[in-house]
Amino acid sequence: MKYLEDFHPGQCIVFGNHVVAKDAIVGFAEAFDPQVFHTNDAHQVTQELGGLMASGWHTAAIFMRLAVEAYLAQSAVLTSPGVDELRWLAPVRPGDTISGEAVVEEARQSASRPDRGILTTHVRLWNQDGVDVLTMKTHAFVRVRPH
Amino acid sequence: MKYLEDFHPGQCIVFGNHVVAKDAIVGFAEAFDPQVFHTNDAHQVTQELGGLMASGWHTAAIFMRLAVEAYLAQSAVLTSPGVDELRWLAPVRPGDTISGEAVVEEARQSASRPDRGILTTHVRLWNQDGVDVLTMKTHAFVRVRPH
Repeated sequence: MKYLEDFHPGQCIVFGNHVVAKDAIVGFAEAFDPQVFHTNDAHQVTQELGGLMASGWHTAAIFMRLAVEAYLAQSAVLTSPGVDELRWLAPVRPGDTISGEAVVEEARQSASRPDRGILTTHVRLWNQDGVDVLTMKTHAFVRVRPH
Repeated sequence: MKYLEDFHPGQCIVFGNHVVAKDAIVGFAEAFDPQVFHTNDAHQVTQELGGLMASGWHTAAIFMRLAVEAYLAQSAVLTSPGVDELRWLAPVRPGDTISGEAVVEEARQSASRPDRGILTTHVRLWNQDGVDVLTMKTHAFVRVRPH
């Protein structure tokens, strides 16, 4: 199990890969983001935008899956207060393979609750062509190592 | 259909309601955020955190569903470059009813692409007890009204 002390500025956490199937794009969108360019590849608006693309929230959820697999499941993470500067830089299309990384910016112990601290990372996701599709800054509460 | 000209600073777009079932919380988390406090209400960590809670990305996806229903489906929205200052302020629990609003901050025509502009809103979601669960600032490209 990794604790706050195990994270250091500049440390790069490498994510695995996630293939984004067309069915997954449409399924997520039908549940949460039923706009035509996420659900209907024959629609004129979709064609004007270059074809079907994943909801940006689907891409963000894929980030979370990759982050849990890469490090969060093995870390003493509590919850997250939020994220900043979330940017969708390029569309995620059916069949794309998404990978990425989280680079630690800061791991700072809490003054008011010394059993925990806040971990800040800069996240970048890219597709199989090396094109960045998402960047953001994440924050998470992480426990310090028990005595 | 609403175009950029139909949005004005201070305009408040009221969302409907979305009931968050326990099965939906667990299903979303198993797909995208398989941390124990989203998937296993009997786990010690979950109990320490006050019980099962929705993934923050699930809450963000629920925002999108409410926003599509409230106005995006009837607006000439293209895509979104991103969001800022996304904050998860309180846990979303099984059975919670989420509602919210988007208040327009700015609707500004693009200088370089005058057929569109950028719509910025401040979003707030709350639960059935009136407790805020999520806030953020959203940005979206919206077409201007065709001549």
